[in-house]
Amino acid sequence: MAYPIRIGSRLIPSAGEQLRQLGLSGSIALVQDSAVAPLYGDRLRASLEAARYRVHPVVVPSGEASKSLEQLALLYKAFSDAGLDRGSAVVTLGGGVVGDLGGFAAASYLRGIDFVQVPTTLLAQVDASVGGKTGIDLPSGKNLVGAFHQPRLVLVDLDTLATLPEREYVAGLAEVVKYGIIYDARFFEFLEVNRDAILGHQPHILESVIERCCEIKAEVVGQDERESGLRAILNYGHTIGHAVETVAGYGTYLHGEAIAIGIRAANWLSEQTVGLKAEDSARIEALLCRLGLPLRAAHPLPEEDLIQTMQRDKKARSGELRFVLAAEIGRVETRPVALELARRALSVIV
Amino acid sequence: MAYPIRIGSRLIPSAGEQLRQLGLSGSIALVQDSAVAPLYGDRLRASLEAARYRVHPVVVPSGEASKSLEQLALLYKAFSDAGLDRGSAVVTLGGGVVGDLGGFAAASYLRGIDFVQVPTTLLAQVDASVGGKTGIDLPSGKNLVGAFHQPRLVLVDLDTLATLPEREYVAGLAEVVKYGIIYDARFFEFLEVNRDAILGHQPHILESVIERCCEIKAEVVGQDERESGLRAILNYGHTIGHAVETVAGYGTYLHGEAIAIGIRAANWLSEQTVGLKAEDSARIEALLCRLGLPLRAAHPLPEEDLIQTMQRDKKARSGELRFVLAAEIGRVETRPVALELARRALSVIV
Repeated sequence: MAYPIRIGSRLIPSAGEQLRQLGLSGSIALVQDSAVAPLYGDRLRASLEAARYRVHPVVVPSGEASKSLEQLALLYKAFSDAGLDRGSAVVTLGGGVVGDLGGFAAASYLRGIDFVQVPTTLLAQVDASVGGKTGIDLPSGKNLVGAFHQPRLVLVDLDTLATLPEREYVAGLAEVVKYGIIYDARFFEFLEVNRDAILGHQPHILESVIERCCEIKAEVVGQDERESGLRAILNYGHTIGHAVETVAGYGTYLHGEAIAIGIRAANWLSEQTVGLKAEDSARIEALLCRLGLPLRAAHPLPEEDLIQTMQRDKKARSGELRFVLAAEIGRVETRPVALELARRALSVIV
Repeated sequence: MAYPIRIGSRLIPSAGEQLRQLGLSGSIALVQDSAVAPLYGDRLRASLEAARYRVHPVVVPSGEASKSLEQLALLYKAFSDAGLDRGSAVVTLGGGVVGDLGGFAAASYLRGIDFVQVPTTLLAQVDASVGGKTGIDLPSGKNLVGAFHQPRLVLVDLDTLATLPEREYVAGLAEVVKYGIIYDARFFEFLEVNRDAILGHQPHILESVIERCCEIKAEVVGQDERESGLRAILNYGHTIGHAVETVAGYGTYLHGEAIAIGIRAANWLSEQTVGLKAEDSARIEALLCRLGLPLRAAHPLPEEDLIQTMQRDKKARSGELRFVLAAEIGRVETRPVALELARRALSVIV
């Protein structure tokens, strides 16, 4: 797990040069989100071609629905048609969807070729670009198929956030808040203090926010690359959040929105089980709310469907429900939770 | 790469007990070749259930065509329907096809769950069960998608060879001969001396043949798990063999038959480039021939198609052709070969 993450402005125009410095020499499949390709695709391609790479552009339709076996098959075909070999690399341009999909295609094509990420959403910049998880969804659940495959380089070009739809930007902030909750009370305070600067996209604040999130994730993952224990803390709010996302149907909620709802449920469970103070719960929810994130599902969701989806969660073992719970802001632990209590947590958010 | 390979008779009835000894405790997806399931599926399932495993049987149609994205998708669906979680395991029963397909499904489902192989063809016993390669084919070539995923256990039950069609048994012997060529001149002699016993399925001879093949493969792979260099020697005869298999259409030749043809071409190239003596070439081809293996394609194959397929080979870099070449029986090396010479080698076998 030793690869550079570069965070700053005007990084896309230097991408070709940076890949050369890494020693990558083969041709490149440039896997782009269809919403991002028209904005930055040409610039990235020009940079790669200026560094004398043969570039094969591939466009993937925007949205979670593209994390599918069908899109994976199309990428494999594109790689094969382009004659990619073991010296080739996949460069992904877009959010978590192309990162996860393109990353898994890179992980599995020829049993693994090089992979560089250029994440263009806040969520992907603080989350998907660290940790090496790649994968796709199945009709029965998110991220059920995948591989651990570390990128060779991550380029976080802050300029790309200028064109990110506000709703997506805000959704990304749910994961940012999560890093404060699970690991760093001071960072959580920093977010409270700077919430207006963050909503105003102030570049130097953003740069330090993204940097701190990547640091936290790298520290957590570095101690537990294969997700045996510690890494699970990154899933605060995710057990119920994923279920909300799945049951509502992918696309109803953005991932970050579902996670904000899941965080509220996790707060409630934490109060019941590990003594999270009501005032800490309130601080977390106030911050999420002020950042513009939802705290309850907007439409009723069948409780049984949510429970069943949680029991199928990758983190579940033999149907037992496990949750990340916060004893206080900055300190969490993983525990089994009785089915009945999990049911009651759902009633808080649906 | 440290997992047990058990070779012997009556191992299937002890499978459940052996999995318990490994500490596997979750439910099991039993992925079976449709030709093998009626023969040994019930026995294996009974053994697993006697050891109190919940077993979910899945049957995959026999034949290379099943190493496809479509079959992979069906396995994922079966795993999901069965509620497999991270504590579950995949057990494959059959030849290389279910081993490769089921192994890749295990490697990628939930980003990797446990995997046990019960290979029932000679080819799978001496080849597919060592080295951790798993994968599927694409329409454009064999094994283009996959992962390295080591099994937790390999059970080679020699009794299963009793029902293996003779043509498949003989095809498996091509890989056996290959191990002698690439690594062990004494083993090659042993094969020459014992060829009738081998063709007669003599159990104690077979056991030592399979054991020696697994040892050689494990030694080669152990020195080079990710196929950067030495491991390539396992591909003696495979560059052209794979091309023959692909261009003729999967199913026309068994893998081992195509490899025997590829070995003849590799012998010829070895004579031209690294000084393999004509008498050594003759010994290799005499042994293959006496074992009942083909040395030329039975039908004409378009030379250009063969060349293009070779250039798309995973082992190729930027279209350059590399071959494993034998300086003598028991000693090989890897070298680039000029396109013109490779073309001439094809004329020897088509």
